[in-house]
Amino acid sequence: MSRVGVIGIGHGKFGRRSDATVQELAFEAFREALHDAPIPKSEIDATVIGAVPEYHKQRSVAGVIQEYLGLTPTPTWLTEVACASGSAAIRTAWMAIRSGMHKVVAVIGCQKMTELSTPEILALMGRVGEVQWESVFGTTFPAYYAMFANAHMHSYGTTRDQLLQVAVKNHFYGARNPNALFQKPITLEKARASEPVASPFCVYDCCANADGAACVILADEFRARSLGGDRVVWLDGVGCATASMSVLKRPNLTGLPSAEQAARQAYQMAEVSARDIKVAEVHDCFTIAEIMAYEDLGFCEKGQGGRYIEERKPYPDGGGVAVNVDGGLKAKGHPIGATGVSMACEIVKQLRGEAGIRQVSGADVGLTHNVGGIGQYCFVHVFRRN
Amino acid sequence: MSRVGVIGIGHGKFGRRSDATVQELAFEAFREALHDAPIPKSEIDATVIGAVPEYHKQRSVAGVIQEYLGLTPTPTWLTEVACASGSAAIRTAWMAIRSGMHKVVAVIGCQKMTELSTPEILALMGRVGEVQWESVFGTTFPAYYAMFANAHMHSYGTTRDQLLQVAVKNHFYGARNPNALFQKPITLEKARASEPVASPFCVYDCCANADGAACVILADEFRARSLGGDRVVWLDGVGCATASMSVLKRPNLTGLPSAEQAARQAYQMAEVSARDIKVAEVHDCFTIAEIMAYEDLGFCEKGQGGRYIEERKPYPDGGGVAVNVDGGLKAKGHPIGATGVSMACEIVKQLRGEAGIRQVSGADVGLTHNVGGIGQYCFVHVFRRN
Repeated sequence: MSRVGVIGIGHGKFGRRSDATVQELAFEAFREALHDAPIPKSEIDATVIGAVPEYHKQRSVAGVIQEYLGLTPTPTWLTEVACASGSAAIRTAWMAIRSGMHKVVAVIGCQKMTELSTPEILALMGRVGEVQWESVFGTTFPAYYAMFANAHMHSYGTTRDQLLQVAVKNHFYGARNPNALFQKPITLEKARASEPVASPFCVYDCCANADGAACVILADEFRARSLGGDRVVWLDGVGCATASMSVLKRPNLTGLPSAEQAARQAYQMAEVSARDIKVAEVHDCFTIAEIMAYEDLGFCEKGQGGRYIEERKPYPDGGGVAVNVDGGLKAKGHPIGATGVSMACEIVKQLRGEAGIRQVSGADVGLTHNVGGIGQYCFVHVFRRN
Repeated sequence: MSRVGVIGIGHGKFGRRSDATVQELAFEAFREALHDAPIPKSEIDATVIGAVPEYHKQRSVAGVIQEYLGLTPTPTWLTEVACASGSAAIRTAWMAIRSGMHKVVAVIGCQKMTELSTPEILALMGRVGEVQWESVFGTTFPAYYAMFANAHMHSYGTTRDQLLQVAVKNHFYGARNPNALFQKPITLEKARASEPVASPFCVYDCCANADGAACVILADEFRARSLGGDRVVWLDGVGCATASMSVLKRPNLTGLPSAEQAARQAYQMAEVSARDIKVAEVHDCFTIAEIMAYEDLGFCEKGQGGRYIEERKPYPDGGGVAVNVDGGLKAKGHPIGATGVSMACEIVKQLRGEAGIRQVSGADVGLTHNVGGIGQYCFVHVFRRN
């Protein structure tokens, strides 16, 4: 079967973007991706938008974005799977290309999170859990992940400091990423002293909402080779799995079964194993989520995620897989629909060797791990240089 | 290239469904489709959900539905393109199968429109137009389509009675569809006397919101033949086009350019022409929309849509294409995400010859025409019996 390649990437600044509408954010990222390729706009056959619609005032943003990018009458549609919407868009584009339906597809993940008022946003985000039986009892996002953290600490002896070392690493790299929301390194002491959110989490355990957009342009093998030349990065493994929305029905709260299964699929499809991965972007919406990802993706044994970060393995040259060296959700900010596409942009940059001061040496195989909700969905994508 | 076939269909009752959550609506349709096929649930590789997320209290319904159907850990994701979300889900499933990613995919269009309060729904629906430059001036859905009606009346002499004859036809067939919201025929006099909404529209020019769900199960050619036997209906043409969100930028307001283009693509792909179509489900959100569809799809010449209905061509045995003989959006009700999938169910039933008192004789080729927003998106799908 023919391969699908990434021929262009674009990434806007994440943060409070009161200067731009959602279509303007999308345009920034799209324009950069076209220039990066470089290809004319007329090469684009279709776009897939990754976004969560309800955070925007504009209804049905895909159409507005398509018009704003000057791409009508070509097709567009939106994919939504909560915080993994961007990766679902990439998966959809992969299928669109492999099916022969389209040859070159731009995937744009975008989200304006600061358009609605804070109470409106909180009311929406409070209903991501299972509303019939769980959310009504007050389990919001931090509370759900705090349960995972407590379970992990209880089962494996994971410590508060190990959790916060994830934050320290990701803020360190956020400071090396001009597109990140937070650009200052933090110390473990500072993280420890931050305000409590949901025990055991304090502020520095949690990522922050942000506005932002990112774009990847995918092409079929023929066009990827002819348009993308040497800089093509191949999307060779696309894994996706789901788990019960209700965490009460999960076998345990120390990992995400959907992540394990999505990883297995993606590794098999790309014919790689966890040992081949040099660089990864994982879904660190809370510090515990990154620690569980080390384990679910097979970077370390089950229960060893706390030690993995304590021993600095996920730092480049730490002897493990370099993880979230662009700052992750934690320091870059989390514009929901944009996050999965932002992850893909960083991996492509790393595999091209164009990541500058964040470059992981010898990066030839990388992955993205993008979680929707509390692990109801997980998408794992494996990218290869050759 | 191998074909994609429909092997099962399921359709719940449309209306005010205070008896069911959105996942329960989805389950009704899914269960019926499994029984219709008939196949065990274990054959389903993935689901694609067509829905507009913001009308639900539950965030990210795809995951909740997947769990409720007992389909975790298989993949699911949601597609959104306003009122065409169900057709985007079908198109996505077609690509998923043709790409080799999945073999059997259940597409579920579902929408609970009566969960939020009426003011909340109106506030959301009022922002489907372009919010930056248009909606702020009061152009809601009926107002937008009323502009189309006025333009069509002005340019082509289309009359009020011709518009309302669409409603008379569709209510006549709604009365023959036990799943329809409205099950009483209406007279032209009754339609004429209904309350004004947005000139020239009165109540009977407008479809009604409803709760509901529908399901189609698609399979690759091998499985379609082995699982579906004689009853397979093939999805041979999948067209999709977009147009500017802002109607101010459209060349005219007498048709939808996205519909013309989507139809052209779908006809070409399925190797048919408008003359081959025996039965069609078109997007009659307002009476003028069905009249424009006759023209955009090539069932009659441009400007002749009013005469087409006046001469009863879209009735079975009327000498034209039988249109919306299940009641259309007008009489069935319009559960936004469900509509495109509901259309596909009716066409499959017709092509199988299982439509009972609504059966169009000799129906071997049919199509669905599903419009998102005010024609920002249009999806045209051509189905064939052989």
